[in-house]
Amino acid sequence: MRVYDLIKIGIVGGTGYTGVELLRLLARHPDADVRTITSRKEASVPVRDMFVSLRGHFDALAFSDPANANLRECDVVFFATPHGVAMAQARELVDAGVKIIDLAADFRLKDPATFTHWYKMPHACTDLLEEAVYGLPEFRREAIKKARIVGNPGCYPTSVQLGFIPLLQAGVVDSEHLIADAKSGASGAGRKAEVGLLLAEAADNFSAYGMAGHRHHPEIVQELTAHSKTPLNLVFTPHLVPMIRGIHATLYARLTRTDVDLQALFETAYAAEPFVDVMPPGSAPDTRSVRASNLARIAVHRPQGGDIVTVLIVIDNLVKGAAGQAVQNMNLMFGLPETAGLTGVPLVP
Amino acid sequence: MRVYDLIKIGIVGGTGYTGVELLRLLARHPDADVRTITSRKEASVPVRDMFVSLRGHFDALAFSDPANANLRECDVVFFATPHGVAMAQARELVDAGVKIIDLAADFRLKDPATFTHWYKMPHACTDLLEEAVYGLPEFRREAIKKARIVGNPGCYPTSVQLGFIPLLQAGVVDSEHLIADAKSGASGAGRKAEVGLLLAEAADNFSAYGMAGHRHHPEIVQELTAHSKTPLNLVFTPHLVPMIRGIHATLYARLTRTDVDLQALFETAYAAEPFVDVMPPGSAPDTRSVRASNLARIAVHRPQGGDIVTVLIVIDNLVKGAAGQAVQNMNLMFGLPETAGLTGVPLVP
Amino acid sequence: MRVYDLIKIGIVGGTGYTGVELLRLLARHPDADVRTITSRKEASVPVRDMFVSLRGHFDALAFSDPANANLRECDVVFFATPHGVAMAQARELVDAGVKIIDLAADFRLKDPATFTHWYKMPHACTDLLEEAVYGLPEFRREAIKKARIVGNPGCYPTSVQLGFIPLLQAGVVDSEHLIADAKSGASGAGRKAEVGLLLAEAADNFSAYGMAGHRHHPEIVQELTAHSKTPLNLVFTPHLVPMIRGIHATLYARLTRTDVDLQALFETAYAAEPFVDVMPPGSAPDTRSVRASNLARIAVHRPQGGDIVTVLIVIDNLVKGAAGQAVQNMNLMFGLPETAGLTGVPLVP
Amino acid sequence: MRVYDLIKIGIVGGTGYTGVELLRLLARHPDADVRTITSRKEASVPVRDMFVSLRGHFDALAFSDPANANLRECDVVFFATPHGVAMAQARELVDAGVKIIDLAADFRLKDPATFTHWYKMPHACTDLLEEAVYGLPEFRREAIKKARIVGNPGCYPTSVQLGFIPLLQAGVVDSEHLIADAKSGASGAGRKAEVGLLLAEAADNFSAYGMAGHRHHPEIVQELTAHSKTPLNLVFTPHLVPMIRGIHATLYARLTRTDVDLQALFETAYAAEPFVDVMPPGSAPDTRSVRASNLARIAVHRPQGGDIVTVLIVIDNLVKGAAGQAVQNMNLMFGLPETAGLTGVPLVP
Repeated sequence: MRVYDLIKIGIVGGTGYTGVELLRLLARHPDADVRTITSRKEASVPVRDMFVSLRGHFDALAFSDPANANLRECDVVFFATPHGVAMAQARELVDAGVKIIDLAADFRLKDPATFTHWYKMPHACTDLLEEAVYGLPEFRREAIKKARIVGNPGCYPTSVQLGFIPLLQAGVVDSEHLIADAKSGASGAGRKAEVGLLLAEAADNFSAYGMAGHRHHPEIVQELTAHSKTPLNLVFTPHLVPMIRGIHATLYARLTRTDVDLQALFETAYAAEPFVDVMPPGSAPDTRSVRASNLARIAVHRPQGGDIVTVLIVIDNLVKGAAGQAVQNMNLMFGLPETAGLTGVPLVP
Repeated sequence: MRVYDLIKIGIVGGTGYTGVELLRLLARHPDADVRTITSRKEASVPVRDMFVSLRGHFDALAFSDPANANLRECDVVFFATPHGVAMAQARELVDAGVKIIDLAADFRLKDPATFTHWYKMPHACTDLLEEAVYGLPEFRREAIKKARIVGNPGCYPTSVQLGFIPLLQAGVVDSEHLIADAKSGASGAGRKAEVGLLLAEAADNFSAYGMAGHRHHPEIVQELTAHSKTPLNLVFTPHLVPMIRGIHATLYARLTRTDVDLQALFETAYAAEPFVDVMPPGSAPDTRSVRASNLARIAVHRPQGGDIVTVLIVIDNLVKGAAGQAVQNMNLMFGLPETAGLTGVPLVP
Repeated sequence: MRVYDLIKIGIVGGTGYTGVELLRLLARHPDADVRTITSRKEASVPVRDMFVSLRGHFDALAFSDPANANLRECDVVFFATPHGVAMAQARELVDAGVKIIDLAADFRLKDPATFTHWYKMPHACTDLLEEAVYGLPEFRREAIKKARIVGNPGCYPTSVQLGFIPLLQAGVVDSEHLIADAKSGASGAGRKAEVGLLLAEAADNFSAYGMAGHRHHPEIVQELTAHSKTPLNLVFTPHLVPMIRGIHATLYARLTRTDVDLQALFETAYAAEPFVDVMPPGSAPDTRSVRASNLARIAVHRPQGGDIVTVLIVIDNLVKGAAGQAVQNMNLMFGLPETAGLTGVPLVP
Repeated sequence: MRVYDLIKIGIVGGTGYTGVELLRLLARHPDADVRTITSRKEASVPVRDMFVSLRGHFDALAFSDPANANLRECDVVFFATPHGVAMAQARELVDAGVKIIDLAADFRLKDPATFTHWYKMPHACTDLLEEAVYGLPEFRREAIKKARIVGNPGCYPTSVQLGFIPLLQAGVVDSEHLIADAKSGASGAGRKAEVGLLLAEAADNFSAYGMAGHRHHPEIVQELTAHSKTPLNLVFTPHLVPMIRGIHATLYARLTRTDVDLQALFETAYAAEPFVDVMPPGSAPDTRSVRASNLARIAVHRPQGGDIVTVLIVIDNLVKGAAGQAVQNMNLMFGLPETAGLTGVPLVP
């Protein structure tokens, strides 16, 4: 017998990939009641017409105009919007007692100047930014439970942090020369029409991108620094993989101590984590092994027994890298089991 | 409060794609208890080592040698094996009161001679073949509920039947000149090493195959004939699509009556079906809209208002075309809600 | 020793896929001298910056503003533009003695009203339309040699015509119920940013499209009718394949005579054709077998020896379906060997 | 007017990807005369039946049994075989005055013990191994011209060397902590049936592999060491990309001098090279920009102006990484223009 009410949920935005993925997950969440989903552009379009895959779920739900949306009656509002939207509405919602989980970048970077530098806009509510919690549950769980606003981590940052933080916390690597060679499927760029993301351009092809600087770089550096005992520098090279979902980060660091049992270090760090799977020694996880799930799988190596540690980590960029982690954060914020709605099995093949 | 026991399940085979897909679905089925999974070749290998995606589920389950498997203690045994295995073990299991769902072809073709012609082996238990029920729930529901043995339909046959049967039952098409132009993802060929199925061969490529005759042809003809008022001939052209999952069948038939409301005909035929979605007029469903789900989506067209009807139908070949339909059949055979364990939302993107 | 001058070539448009493919082919054409390439949007951008693959070829060539382009000094101008551009400039060029090969649709449809219906614009030069030759060399060779204006066929029309015309010319099929089930790679839609063509949307997916009517339908019907002895109707179903290049057309027709040797019919029809390969009986050509080449490969079947003929045909939509055929037409118009510049071997794998 | 004879060519093996690629290139090579191609398994099969893409070229050529092949009458023999074949036949051919280009590993590793360790077989002709030249023309051109036996470099080694050697020769990086994060298309694994390389396994997926050690590691280390002024260690992580062709290597090294103009260093190093394209500052070459061509494209970066240099390099693994480089070596060995037969334009899209 249910002894609590369903959580009343609003979604702002929701016509992009994080939006449809949120809906996919919430459709099967035992405690979720999606009340409102907004889109200025698609106002009054039934969700089932926008996303055929959702036909049979949310059949009564249509996108509503943001102007008419009663978000203040929700318990929580997810922002699956472009950067800059959440911070404009956060004050009103927070004052109305609504919790906020922002899947964009408005509440990730603690320094407003850094935000402005990378996102080309001033921050609209620096006081709320200060109280917002960076939503990586594995390292911010208690703060998230009490948060009113959660800045949901970026996809690359989630993977890179899960791979590096145990090494940094243990103080066993040269933190000034970290290298993250990261590879992402095309959905990471969002559901927006760009020539470079066309199948005819991106399929059967591979390249690095963002060599002039990627917005996830400052986010990763901020968070890794917070967990590092020593100053930190990171080279971050994102690449586009001709696949739909998935991030594979290959991380390299120079060991400052070579007597440490790296496998044990990672197994201990994540022993209690429901969504982090430290693989047996010698493993090389593939992205499909977490496809459609909220899992991260990690393998740690010391090639040729040398003084460089290589960490391999995979996540589904739309789940653990976005919507799934947002639901995980919601679960924490509302005292639900952390895995509620997130127990789906990865889709292989 | 549960007022019935979990269903004790055995899986024979299970190292192929239908096997891992069965496990994926059964992992989240509220009434399923997978007791045994067999593989001669992988005996004693933990399931989680074979399928990394299943780590965290079935962690205590390992493949067992078929010789030692206590299949007779199961309530139901799924055969996810090559053709010929199920019929060799069926008698013993049926006598022990175990129900059988065969995902291979042993119990699909009613005529033993036809079976022998296409599968190059004599049929081992023609009496059981006679009683076996062809497991397409939409058209065999009541028989399935009472069946001891279900021959689970092939992937192509499932799609072609769902598209053609309403037209045949209504008697509105020339049944002697049916055309099924079908396209399948590569997982339809199974998890077996063949040069032609390598990514380097099959990616960025498209072709027809099986022009000399495909095993699914007699199966489709048998079943369509059973629902047709008139003699039946079918041209069936399978094609290989460079994708993992999904079947798209494009069906053509000459209308013998052009005054029929085809949209209404299909909507009526499937009004009560939980897994068949008749799309609005003008639609063209894509395979991803059913990816990972047990759904079929159908659209019906009369191009240029002429006398040819075109039916577009999509399924996930591993779910509605194999493991999902098998679970649907199990649900029917055990009096469970037909949709139990099959309510996952399609994975898009 | 060369006894003739290089052909002075202008390309209008040229920032799309047919443009870069033209450049790829012309770079290795022994008689081609690309003098001018225009693009309003990319004016003054070096070709090598737009298309990295062309670095090392055309290094001195930059896109020029159409207003400044001296197209009248060319021997031939290719229009690799959106529909409607060529017809606006044709009169001036023709009067200056410049030959025109239009890769868009301006000179394909003989009936201006049909053109207007499908392309939503009036035709700008109906007199030139009348003299323009439809550029399918296999069936219009002599006219092309003398043409001032060639309307280069669409990609689907090329494949469907090569497959159906021998049957229609022989008068052995029911021409009123032709079916063309066609499948194209994503480059067929052009190099334009559309959500539905994103890798994250179109990969691992398959669907039909254009069910309400496709612009290639009237073009195919016009040309097939010209070669048919009897009235003609066609159902044409295009599908999007998750691959970059290639068209596979699967054609179906009812045989009105079943005593005809279909293999011989096709072999005879194409015996002298340098770019049409009639495959041995039983074959199923794949699209990659013509990738990057100007070839078409055809296989003809009578499934189960019945009264339906199935023709399988593959082309590279950007070569035989666009730029390659345009070069073939140029070769004919200038008295060059028909295969000049078109002898590259298909790229497999 | 030709003043020299065609080069008589034999190919041993030739049913794999390097074989068909060799044939594709040699079909258009002005000086090549492929006399013999052997395959024990496919003996007497016409080449055009094995590789449909070659229909129309080599139509008179069939695979011959190695026992009957008159390889001694060739000017050069390419071995496109598994490892171990070339060294068994090398002595006889060399004594007959036939030059050898081995696309396998028999003549790459200078130390027989290292060869035996990685390839699990003793070396059959260590004296010839000693005289064999490692066929990377950019750094071994003069030796190749005089060589009787060339060990054609592996695909990964080609890319990694072209990226690292200029830095090592200049002595500006810490050679003891080199990192090569390399990504390859599936054709790099060869045309052999393996479950892990099936489209249904490898598509829409990404992972590292060979973490226990990859055969290309010792080859790379041997050659880099030869060009390094200081001791050398390399971490090499290969990854499998869901694409057919292409290698992208992302190389990292710590700069020991930060006052060096890296762009100028690379531009100078490759100024005279016909097949190495140093891209403008800020570039990120994609693999398709060299697809089907013998080119390598390189971009060099210093992320955030720090002390790590990142080199991005792409090649087509079957061309510059195998068959194309072999033809380049042949050209050098026979005094032909180095680019003969290798001027094809990359295939984009």
